[in-house]
Amino acid sequence: MAKQANNAISPTRSEDYPEWYQQVVKAADLAENSPVRGCMVIKPWGYAIWENIQRELDRRFKETGHRNAYFPLFIPMSFLQKEADHVEGFAKECAVVTHSRLEADADGKLQPAGPLEEPLIVRPTSETIIGELFSKWVQSYRDLPLLINQWANVVRWEMRTRLFLRTTEFLWQEGHTVHATDQEAIEETRKILDIYADFAEQYMAMPVITGEKTEAERFPGAQITYAIEAMMQDRKALQAGTSHFLGQNFAKSSQIKYLSSEGQEEYAWTTSWGVSTRLVGGLIMTHSDDDGLVLPPRIAPAHVVIIPVTPKEESRAAVLDYCRELKQELEAQPFLDGRVKVELDDRDMRGGEKTWSWIKKGIPVRAEVGPRDMEQRAVFVGRRDHGPKEKQAIPRDEFIGTIGAILDDIQDNLLARARAHRDEHSREITSEAEFLEFFTPQNKEDPEIHGGFAIMGFCCDPELEERIAKEHKVTVRCIPIATENEEVPCVFTGKPGKRVVFAKSY
Amino acid sequence: MAKQANNAISPTRSEDYPEWYQQVVKAADLAENSPVRGCMVIKPWGYAIWENIQRELDRRFKETGHRNAYFPLFIPMSFLQKEADHVEGFAKECAVVTHSRLEADADGKLQPAGPLEEPLIVRPTSETIIGELFSKWVQSYRDLPLLINQWANVVRWEMRTRLFLRTTEFLWQEGHTVHATDQEAIEETRKILDIYADFAEQYMAMPVITGEKTEAERFPGAQITYAIEAMMQDRKALQAGTSHFLGQNFAKSSQIKYLSSEGQEEYAWTTSWGVSTRLVGGLIMTHSDDDGLVLPPRIAPAHVVIIPVTPKEESRAAVLDYCRELKQELEAQPFLDGRVKVELDDRDMRGGEKTWSWIKKGIPVRAEVGPRDMEQRAVFVGRRDHGPKEKQAIPRDEFIGTIGAILDDIQDNLLARARAHRDEHSREITSEAEFLEFFTPQNKEDPEIHGGFAIMGFCCDPELEERIAKEHKVTVRCIPIATENEEVPCVFTGKPGKRVVFAKSY
Repeated sequence: MAKQANNAISPTRSEDYPEWYQQVVKAADLAENSPVRGCMVIKPWGYAIWENIQRELDRRFKETGHRNAYFPLFIPMSFLQKEADHVEGFAKECAVVTHSRLEADADGKLQPAGPLEEPLIVRPTSETIIGELFSKWVQSYRDLPLLINQWANVVRWEMRTRLFLRTTEFLWQEGHTVHATDQEAIEETRKILDIYADFAEQYMAMPVITGEKTEAERFPGAQITYAIEAMMQDRKALQAGTSHFLGQNFAKSSQIKYLSSEGQEEYAWTTSWGVSTRLVGGLIMTHSDDDGLVLPPRIAPAHVVIIPVTPKEESRAAVLDYCRELKQELEAQPFLDGRVKVELDDRDMRGGEKTWSWIKKGIPVRAEVGPRDMEQRAVFVGRRDHGPKEKQAIPRDEFIGTIGAILDDIQDNLLARARAHRDEHSREITSEAEFLEFFTPQNKEDPEIHGGFAIMGFCCDPELEERIAKEHKVTVRCIPIATENEEVPCVFTGKPGKRVVFAKSY
Repeated sequence: MAKQANNAISPTRSEDYPEWYQQVVKAADLAENSPVRGCMVIKPWGYAIWENIQRELDRRFKETGHRNAYFPLFIPMSFLQKEADHVEGFAKECAVVTHSRLEADADGKLQPAGPLEEPLIVRPTSETIIGELFSKWVQSYRDLPLLINQWANVVRWEMRTRLFLRTTEFLWQEGHTVHATDQEAIEETRKILDIYADFAEQYMAMPVITGEKTEAERFPGAQITYAIEAMMQDRKALQAGTSHFLGQNFAKSSQIKYLSSEGQEEYAWTTSWGVSTRLVGGLIMTHSDDDGLVLPPRIAPAHVVIIPVTPKEESRAAVLDYCRELKQELEAQPFLDGRVKVELDDRDMRGGEKTWSWIKKGIPVRAEVGPRDMEQRAVFVGRRDHGPKEKQAIPRDEFIGTIGAILDDIQDNLLARARAHRDEHSREITSEAEFLEFFTPQNKEDPEIHGGFAIMGFCCDPELEERIAKEHKVTVRCIPIATENEEVPCVFTGKPGKRVVFAKSY
C-alpha cells in the first residue's frame, strides 16, 4: 500500500519536508500566496491563530508596563541613512514609494505621477522613524523609561519567500523602549526575551533556547541581539523572536537625549524587540504530522468540533438538538482565562470527509455524535495528539466535566513531545570530525533530515564562522544564556571559547 | 479677565473651533503629526481609545458570523483599473511603489533601484485585491455567504490633513462579503449599518443618523452607499462609517462567480463596509469642552484616576497605601464586560497641575485623596461631565459600591447632551430662503458656528446638488432610513423629492 494513502498530507514529512509544510498550510486553510509577489493572504483559520498569539503577548506587554502606539508606515529615505549599519542591513530589500498618484497617459494607460521630492520607504522596521519621535518625547529623566509597542505590518523585499516563514509583507509587533542607563536597557531586553520564551513554551508548546547572537547574526545597528531559537521537526533551527540592546547607536543617530536628575544632558539607551507571523510557521513545523496541522489548545482558534453523524433522516433533528445542547454546555466550561471554544459542524458533507477536514485543521478535540451515542448519552471522542482512528466513547457528562483537563493534557503532551524531539537531536560536540558527521546526511533517501543542535565550544571568530556557514550551511544559532559564562575550548581552534549552539536554520 | 485663563484649552471652541480641536488632541496627548507628510503618530492614550473601539466592534462582527483575515498591503496597478469608477475615485491619491531596493550612487547618495515591472499601489481600500482572491474562494452556493473582515492600515494621498479626521495613512476595518442574492447583500449592508449606529450611540455616546448617500457621495463602484452621520459641536456633520452594496460591479470585474443549487453559474453580489480612526476625531468633537477631552466611560482607556494629595511628608506613605487599597477595590468592581480600570497617579508633580492633566485627558472620574480624606475614610470625587471645580466628598465604601452606577450615569449624560445638541440644531426647512438663512453665519464673531442639520425635501438632481455644494458648501449628508419612503416636495424645485439631511460637513 502506498504511504500517502494512509495520510491526509502528501508528501509526508520524510518524503519531502518543505513540500509537506506547504501542503499542511494548504490543507488547514491557513494562508495562501497572493497575486502580489511574496505577499501572503492570511485566511481566517490562520489569522485566528495570530489573534491568539497577539492577545496573550499583548496582555504580557501591558502587564509589564508597555503601552501600544502607532507610527507611520512610511519612512523618509534620509532617516534610514542615519544609522550606517542599519541602512546597510535594509537598503537591499526596501519597497520604495516614489509617486503620489496615477495618471492616464496618451494611450489611456495609467502611469505613476506626482513624483515625490524625497522617496519614502515602506518600513522594514521602525527604529529610525520612532527614534525621531522619541527624541521629542524624551526630555528629562522623568520621561524614562519610555516603554512602547506597536502592532503593525512591515515590508522586506525577499527574493525567496515561504508562507509565514519568510514573506515580503508580514505582521509583527515591534517594541521600542528608552532607558536612562545601559543596565536598565539590557534588563529590558532580557525581560522581553523571557516573555517570548515563556509564551513560546507555555502557549505554543514550542520549547526554545534563549541566547545571544554572534556578530554575524546581530540586528543591523544593535550592540547585543538576543533570540529565542526553536528546533523544527526537520531538526533545523527557527529564530522565533529577537530582542535587541541598541546601546546608544540609535539614540545618537536620532538625538534621543535627556536631562538627568543631576541636570546633565545625556544620550539615552534604547532597545527594540519583535515577534512576527513567522511564529505561526514555527507552530506548524513543531507539532504538525503527516495528517496535517496539530494545534496546542492554548493557541487554537477553537478547541472542540462537534460532528453530528446523521445517516438517517428521521433521527437527524434529535441528534442536532443533542449536539447543540452539548455545545452550549461545553462552552460554559472554563479554559485558560476564558471558555472552551466549540464549533458545531453541521455542513452537508460525508462524515469521513468532514472529520478529516478537522484533523487537517488541527483542532485539539473531535466529538462525533450519532444516534447511538445520543441514546447512550455519550460522545465519541478523538484527540489530535493521538492517531486519527484512536477514538473513545465517553459519557457525555464526563466529557463536559473533563474537557478542561483533556485540553491541558493535550497541551502538556505536545510540549513534552517537542522537548523530547529537541533533546533527542541535541548533541554535545567535542571534535571537528564529530561536527562534520553530525551535519552530514547519513541516509541518501532523507537528505533533509539530519543534524540538530550541536552544543559545543566555539571561539566566535567571525571569519571562521563565515567559512563554516559557507561550507556546511551551519551557523551559530546562539550563545545560550543558561551557559553564557562558561569558558570552553573551541572545537575548531582549541582557543578559549563560548558554549554555543550550531545548527542549520530557516 | 481673559477668557482662556478659565480654561485649559486655548483657544476655546467659540474662539476658533478648528484650532481648539488641534489643541485638545495635543493636550490629551492623543496623537501628533509625524515627519512624514500627512501621516500621524497615534500616541498611547489615543491608541487605547482605538483599541477599545476595535474590541467592541470586533466582538460584534464575530457575533454576526464574520471572520478576520489579512490581505496584502500592495495592489498591482492593473487590478485597480478593473473597475472603472473605482480607479477614477482613487487614482488621484495613491502612494505608488516603483522600486524594490536602494543603491548608493557615485556620490554615495542613496537612490531607488530595482525598478518593478508593474508598479504597486499601497491599498487605499481593498476591493480589487480581495475580489481577486474571493473569485478563487467562491465556487459554489455552499461557499456563500462569505463574511470576511480585515483590520488594516490604508493610504490615501490627502492634500489637506487633520489628525484623525483626514490623514494620508489611517487605520480601519474593512468588511468584504459575498452573497448569492442582491437582497441578502443589501440586508448585510443594513445589518452592519445598524451595528455601526448602535455602537456609536451606546459606546461612543455619539448619536447618528443612518441613511443612504446620494450619487454624488457614493463610494466609487458602489450601487448603494449607506452611512452613519453625526453632528459635531460646530454643527457640521461627520460621516463616521459607511456600508456599501456593490451590486455585481466588483463580482463582474473580479469574476466572482458561483454554481447555484440549480447548477447555474451566477455572478455573486458583494458588499464592503468600514470605520476608521476618524471615529476618534468624531468622539473628540462630540463631547470635548474648553477644558479638553471628555471621554464616555465605555470607550475610555481608564475610568478613574486616583490622585494622592500629599502635602506633608509624614502622611505621604499612609495616603499612598490608602490609595493603593482603594485602587485594588475599585478594580474589583464590574463595568461593562470587564472591570473598572483605575490609574494611580503618584508622579512627583504639583497637585493642581496633575489634576488638570487628567481633566485634559478626559478621564471620566477623578478621585483625590489627601490626609483628611483618609482620616474620614472618604474620597474627593470629580466627574468629567461636571465642571472642574464641582467636586464632592463621598465615603470611600459608597464610592466603591457606586462606581459602576456613576460611570453609567456619565455615559447616559454624555449621550443625552449630544442628542440635545443635535436636536437643537436640526431644523425642518420648507423654503429656499429658510435654507439660505440657516446656513449663513448670523454672528460675525463666530463665522464657524452656524447651521446644523437641515431636514427637507430634495429632488436629488445631481446638478442642483453640485451647484448647492459649490455655492454654499452644503451637501446632502443622507436620505435617512427612518423616513426613506416618504415623498416630499423639493424645497428648491417643488418637484417630488426625498426627505434628506443637508449640512456642512468634514
